[in-house]
Amino acid sequence: MRLARFAVFAVLALSARPLMAAGEVTDFTLDNGMQVVVIEDHRAPVVVHMVWYRTGAADEPPGKSGIAHFLEHLMFKGTDERAAGELSKVVEANGGSDNAFTSYDYTAYFQRVAADRLALMMEMEADRMRDLALAPDDVATERSVILEERATRTDSEPGALFREELDAALYRNHPYGVPVIGWKGEMEGLTRDDALAFYRQFYAPNNAILIVAGDVLPDEVRALAEAQYGRLVPSEGIGPRARPQEPPSRAARRIVLEDARVAQPSLMRSYLAPAREPGDQGTAAALAYLARLLGGDAATSVLGRALQFDSQLAVHTSAGYSATSLDDTTFSVVVVPAEGVSLAEAEAALDAQLATFLKTGPDPVAFERLRMQIRAAEIYALDDVGEIADRYGRALTTGLSIGDVQAWPEALQAVTIDDVLTAARAVLDKRASVTGWLLPEGGEGVL
Amino acid sequence: MRLARFAVFAVLALSARPLMAAGEVTDFTLDNGMQVVVIEDHRAPVVVHMVWYRTGAADEPPGKSGIAHFLEHLMFKGTDERAAGELSKVVEANGGSDNAFTSYDYTAYFQRVAADRLALMMEMEADRMRDLALAPDDVATERSVILEERATRTDSEPGALFREELDAALYRNHPYGVPVIGWKGEMEGLTRDDALAFYRQFYAPNNAILIVAGDVLPDEVRALAEAQYGRLVPSEGIGPRARPQEPPSRAARRIVLEDARVAQPSLMRSYLAPAREPGDQGTAAALAYLARLLGGDAATSVLGRALQFDSQLAVHTSAGYSATSLDDTTFSVVVVPAEGVSLAEAEAALDAQLATFLKTGPDPVAFERLRMQIRAAEIYALDDVGEIADRYGRALTTGLSIGDVQAWPEALQAVTIDDVLTAARAVLDKRASVTGWLLPEGGEGVL
Repeated sequence: MRLARFAVFAVLALSARPLMAAGEVTDFTLDNGMQVVVIEDHRAPVVVHMVWYRTGAADEPPGKSGIAHFLEHLMFKGTDERAAGELSKVVEANGGSDNAFTSYDYTAYFQRVAADRLALMMEMEADRMRDLALAPDDVATERSVILEERATRTDSEPGALFREELDAALYRNHPYGVPVIGWKGEMEGLTRDDALAFYRQFYAPNNAILIVAGDVLPDEVRALAEAQYGRLVPSEGIGPRARPQEPPSRAARRIVLEDARVAQPSLMRSYLAPAREPGDQGTAAALAYLARLLGGDAATSVLGRALQFDSQLAVHTSAGYSATSLDDTTFSVVVVPAEGVSLAEAEAALDAQLATFLKTGPDPVAFERLRMQIRAAEIYALDDVGEIADRYGRALTTGLSIGDVQAWPEALQAVTIDDVLTAARAVLDKRASVTGWLLPEGGEGVL
Repeated sequence: MRLARFAVFAVLALSARPLMAAGEVTDFTLDNGMQVVVIEDHRAPVVVHMVWYRTGAADEPPGKSGIAHFLEHLMFKGTDERAAGELSKVVEANGGSDNAFTSYDYTAYFQRVAADRLALMMEMEADRMRDLALAPDDVATERSVILEERATRTDSEPGALFREELDAALYRNHPYGVPVIGWKGEMEGLTRDDALAFYRQFYAPNNAILIVAGDVLPDEVRALAEAQYGRLVPSEGIGPRARPQEPPSRAARRIVLEDARVAQPSLMRSYLAPAREPGDQGTAAALAYLARLLGGDAATSVLGRALQFDSQLAVHTSAGYSATSLDDTTFSVVVVPAEGVSLAEAEAALDAQLATFLKTGPDPVAFERLRMQIRAAEIYALDDVGEIADRYGRALTTGLSIGDVQAWPEALQAVTIDDVLTAARAVLDKRASVTGWLLPEGGEGVL
């Protein structure tokens, strides 16, 4: 009851409210090519300072997998001016926190501190953008750290190994088939020279985006950014990002991973799917609906109702789509069969549901409900400056513009049932898919 | 009857004959690092002149697939001294023939001419090793030629597309998963600059092997080679060949390619397999036996007897193994089911036969017969100087030495039944395999 009343309240409230950000967004570019986005949020005297680089694991040279992430770790070592680890200590001493993350298309560094510490953050971040100094011992130590990270998060997790194999099978030519953490054999061979070569190639003001979100004014950020980042000389070798693309998808693929550590068999199918394109986000928006319609809420989604509630063949179903990606991305569905149900039976049920969906399309009532949910989610998201900062960072490092970010909520609202069906028929093509079975050793997985 | 008598005769003759080449083999290295192999054969006043480069499609930069083969075509265009097509015309005018070929690990150029034309061949080949001159029009024309080659040999042949997909699925990280001819989308973008960059990086005397086979004397070849090739300056950037290697094989894979042009369904399974290693050719030799034992002669091989003769489930079976490869290679088996037999049934029968073989091993009589056949084949091969030249070229461009080439026949003779079983148990592991089904559209291939 409480949930239902809350939903009504939300819908009423939303109808009266325009689609706009809680914080004002301002953007400009420094003379050296560094793009700057300022997101104002004066509710608390805090600021998030982020530098996003337009480079990630998919920009690594062949045979050097993991170097983008390894360099991210090494960026916390010293510079010409500061000792190893000093940056994080200064952040902490100023009551703040800092971290970084690496993905296929971007690498980002951020600190959250009191707003009056912004200049200090910029000074330190600008320093390590150009003057990283790597002691050989630090490199060796940190290589052990990333190897341990791989051992813990991938090699000891059958589910992670499974997703690694699915990606490797889906992407035959594109580097999205290589794990961000790296293949272990290649990680072991990564050197200081490899890290510095990657750093020199990609870390430059004209390959970076500064995002400042919080209790700041755009003019203030501009003055600080010009003083700290504006003095950095741009690099000449920053070209357009062109990775090897996927050849036509002709053959359906499947993988079977048997692992003694698997307690619960599951199946996952990944399809190659288009991402948001600059000025053309309609297909991606439709695929965002498709994922929710197929595998969103268990009680109302197509797979949840059919496989979990009606037939009770599954204990879990879901669907996922990563809309923001420089190159073709992944649409995936997951089914975890119930006790006593084989993966083959679960897959047959999945295929039957997908086939029915492609014929009949979504239920109009469910579709309209989802449109309203997405509208609500978009509006709530705009209240979270961290989320807004993240959206700009991911979009701007994957080829999208400020305008694309701002048009995305409207693109989502403009999706029709026909758009979803057209996108579904194009993407849910087995020839562009990998179906994976993850199960204990000696199960039904013999290929 | 005639075949049987011939076989007896061959065996008797072989027993008395030592394992040695019909032609004497001499090798030396020029001061600029160019390796030279001379194979004497004075039975006819003819010579085959070959230059092999230690570079091929697996050395291409990412996104530039097909550039090694494209450059091979462009090498028949002009140089600073000669017009486009002139080299082949001169060869023809001298009563000879010429051609070239590109593989993953090597690219080779050769002419077959009267022995007294050798100096002229060397002069022209040395000229194009260093002074290639590419007119933009020639590049555009030849790009159409290679695209047409791909259209004819790959895109119009479902079997070729199928093997392309199998390789792409088997090699997740290594460039053997990218076709030698190139992905069409990447071939379309290959430029004159791409070709010249590849040429400058890899075409140099210290990255080349000269093989001269025929009616020549080593001292004569040395004098000519020093005069023609010896004057070429070696390149400094020729490093060790290090391609991205395959990560551990954890998940069995399969692909299904449905194509309306397929008349006869078939299945192929490829396993990742070790190649001949310098100083260590025993495993490769055992795998050469394994391929013959499983899928050699239809009447006597394991798969032929069981699937074609006894159960009549198949109309064709075969097995293949490419022993000579710089990096891990492929062991494959093929089954073409009989009319009315599904691919699933054929695959189950294949799996049953492989399982039985791994338990019981080869029949000792069949094994000894095969050993004698291999001995005979090796001896006959040594009578063919073209074959000998090819063996040295392939071996020396895939990391093997002259000594390895000469030890190979003995390595084959030293293989035991235990060696075959050990190699089979290591290689016939589904986790390191791809099983492919090729069939008409709408067949049983729905994954």
